[in-house]
Amino acid sequence: MAADNPAANAAEQPEEAPGAPDAQAALAALADERIDHRFKGLPPDADGLTVGQLAAQRRNLFTGGFTTPVLALSAERLEHNLALMETYAERHGLAFAPHGKTSMAPQLFARQVERGAWGITLAVPHQVRVARAFGISRIFLANELVDAAALRMVAAELDADPSFRFICYVDSVRGVELMHAALSEAGASRPVDVVLELAAGDEARTGVRAEAECFEIANAVAGADTLRLVGVAGYEGEVPQATTEKVTAWLRRLSALAVELDKAGRFADLPEVVVSAGGSAWFDAVASVFAELPELSVPVLKLLRSGAYVSHDDGHYRNLTPFNRVPQEGALEPAFRLWAQVVSRPSAAQAFTNAGKRDAAYDLHLPEAQVVRRDGVERPATGITVTGLSDQHGWLRTEPEAELAVGDWLGMGLSHPCTVFDKWQLIPLVEADGTVTEYVRTFF
Amino acid sequence: MAADNPAANAAEQPEEAPGAPDAQAALAALADERIDHRFKGLPPDADGLTVGQLAAQRRNLFTGGFTTPVLALSAERLEHNLALMETYAERHGLAFAPHGKTSMAPQLFARQVERGAWGITLAVPHQVRVARAFGISRIFLANELVDAAALRMVAAELDADPSFRFICYVDSVRGVELMHAALSEAGASRPVDVVLELAAGDEARTGVRAEAECFEIANAVAGADTLRLVGVAGYEGEVPQATTEKVTAWLRRLSALAVELDKAGRFADLPEVVVSAGGSAWFDAVASVFAELPELSVPVLKLLRSGAYVSHDDGHYRNLTPFNRVPQEGALEPAFRLWAQVVSRPSAAQAFTNAGKRDAAYDLHLPEAQVVRRDGVERPATGITVTGLSDQHGWLRTEPEAELAVGDWLGMGLSHPCTVFDKWQLIPLVEADGTVTEYVRTFF
Repeated sequence: MAADNPAANAAEQPEEAPGAPDAQAALAALADERIDHRFKGLPPDADGLTVGQLAAQRRNLFTGGFTTPVLALSAERLEHNLALMETYAERHGLAFAPHGKTSMAPQLFARQVERGAWGITLAVPHQVRVARAFGISRIFLANELVDAAALRMVAAELDADPSFRFICYVDSVRGVELMHAALSEAGASRPVDVVLELAAGDEARTGVRAEAECFEIANAVAGADTLRLVGVAGYEGEVPQATTEKVTAWLRRLSALAVELDKAGRFADLPEVVVSAGGSAWFDAVASVFAELPELSVPVLKLLRSGAYVSHDDGHYRNLTPFNRVPQEGALEPAFRLWAQVVSRPSAAQAFTNAGKRDAAYDLHLPEAQVVRRDGVERPATGITVTGLSDQHGWLRTEPEAELAVGDWLGMGLSHPCTVFDKWQLIPLVEADGTVTEYVRTFF
Repeated sequence: MAADNPAANAAEQPEEAPGAPDAQAALAALADERIDHRFKGLPPDADGLTVGQLAAQRRNLFTGGFTTPVLALSAERLEHNLALMETYAERHGLAFAPHGKTSMAPQLFARQVERGAWGITLAVPHQVRVARAFGISRIFLANELVDAAALRMVAAELDADPSFRFICYVDSVRGVELMHAALSEAGASRPVDVVLELAAGDEARTGVRAEAECFEIANAVAGADTLRLVGVAGYEGEVPQATTEKVTAWLRRLSALAVELDKAGRFADLPEVVVSAGGSAWFDAVASVFAELPELSVPVLKLLRSGAYVSHDDGHYRNLTPFNRVPQEGALEPAFRLWAQVVSRPSAAQAFTNAGKRDAAYDLHLPEAQVVRRDGVERPATGITVTGLSDQHGWLRTEPEAELAVGDWLGMGLSHPCTVFDKWQLIPLVEADGTVTEYVRTFF
């Protein structure tokens, strides 16, 4: 990493400070949890083992007593995706705070940080509690935060741990007032860092609609000694009818806002300014526009927040990933496979599995039938289509060429990592030969 | 209860047997769990308290430090719904095995059993593990079960606890063969009770399509000493383009199948025959048709399985509940309210909350804005409509008359209890004045 790249410098993690949560101890404790009724899909005969003991047995997903439905996360593909985005961010001079809301898995947060992530992005205060319990020292809350109880919690964390860095959005004077009131009442001793959120369009979710308002809000922040304005941010994924041109135009507005605020002296006392964007559909445009950002009066932390890459998918992000536009920079690999069992085959044209809305994402696309396993042999799921999900059943349409029987396991690809992870609390990490090497705990 | 009503007699719970899980101890242990990052919405300053200690503090949902979003379950409405369906089943001579997949909350299972439920219906083996961990002694698995590992678990439970009653579906000869092979290999000493599932129509989910096939499958069961055929069942909720007439016609087919099997001597050696149907949209038709069931050679356990009544809802089941057709028999009350905070109000026509797909059901309807709270005052959410959900945001359209500001709490009604419960692991039970008296733990 170039020494003159502030983003890369920022990616070095601070020393552990007194008052900081003990990340290693918290992660290690996950291996001491007991396997029991809390965790679906795991082998009933593993009841009472610790997670670490079960992992040490290196059971096979298909022969080790796992029950269906069970979600598998590919160990090799996960590793590939983690490495690819580390390289991507580094190549483009971007600091990286992958969105943790996707997985809410502290073990994955730790691997992201080990691979150079500046910190973790989150969406709501509960997620901040999870990340703090596992020692994440830099949190970018990509949302407004006006909840007094949550602000007390954040203030207490900041007070207890001088190494903790926390940044959240502001998009209204009223929001600034509510934050200031709550933090003043909490007796916060360190100011909370905030960035102005610029909306991605006139009807495009949260964020200030017009740049002029940003200066009003910046004034309000300047008047609140509990807050410190440290930059600008937004989410290009909400640009209406997005195209590269429209997204690029909006990102240039965001950059220009940073430049204007800097010219107005709003960042004069800072060690660095934060400029942040980047979901999982347009990080190529973010990289391009942030590369053009002119020098400001202080160094700039260009912060990318993409989160879905960690598992990638077989639907939404397969279609939308920027790597489709820049294949020379690599390709993400879908790392989830949901295994369900065929429990009913009532006609030549229909079959039903035991995986439904409780197990699979269904908000953007239905699962995709990929492979069928019977007696240890895996073959393509030719002629099999998932046509619907009940709460606990999957509906399959089968063409005449589909060979499918009661008892078969069906392996499915899924769409939208955020609504896959949130249906599973302990996810087997599975090598290509079926060996389960680890279990990934989520907290939703 | 009339002494000659086998369903009512069956509702008396068996004595606890050696080998039976200790239900009271398991439920009591829930109060010893620690409040921590696992449970969203709870007060950050309650971290480290036990659930029992927090409940004893009787905090107020609105002033007690809870963070948004937070889901509240009305204590009074829950109690009302539990009582109403107990009365309903009793009045109609039905045994009741409410579908536990809805809540997956052992505390609610226990209250259902206290109120006379015969047992609990479930959908997949993982749910059986949860129910068994909390001492449920009668389980009706309303699904086929052909998973060898899960059948080993069931066989072990049956062997360890002579008081455990377990029934599941069969709908294919191959399914029977797979069950028999798995149970034989497991060395099961008690046969598994099965009921023939009759499909609700030619394309209507699992179940045998034609009665003639049922006799073939019954023959297969008769040839497997690990299985015992104890009746018939189905799910009228899948009748295509359902009307009272169509549902009634299908229920009569189900009854006639029971009669035919009985005439053929298939139930001769049983203490009772099971005839089961009944989701949450047609239990009036189930009650009517089951009342007409002629006497069989052995007593009949008429088993109703409705599950969504426990919380009811403000959408799907508000529209579909049979009580709309029989108001003289009572009315269920929607018991959930999701509280979110307005975090952004970027224009006169839009606002955004911090509750999204991670917090609210979205599979059948969007949440319904009901009330707004500010400074302890609650008023109707006039002119406010939820128009969409992101993963962690709610989108609101506001009419000119809507008075809504950043910081306000928005109380929302939800549609489809099954996809509400599954987003919350510890749900405050809240009295009308906001006092939280208990926390309901779910296991998904």
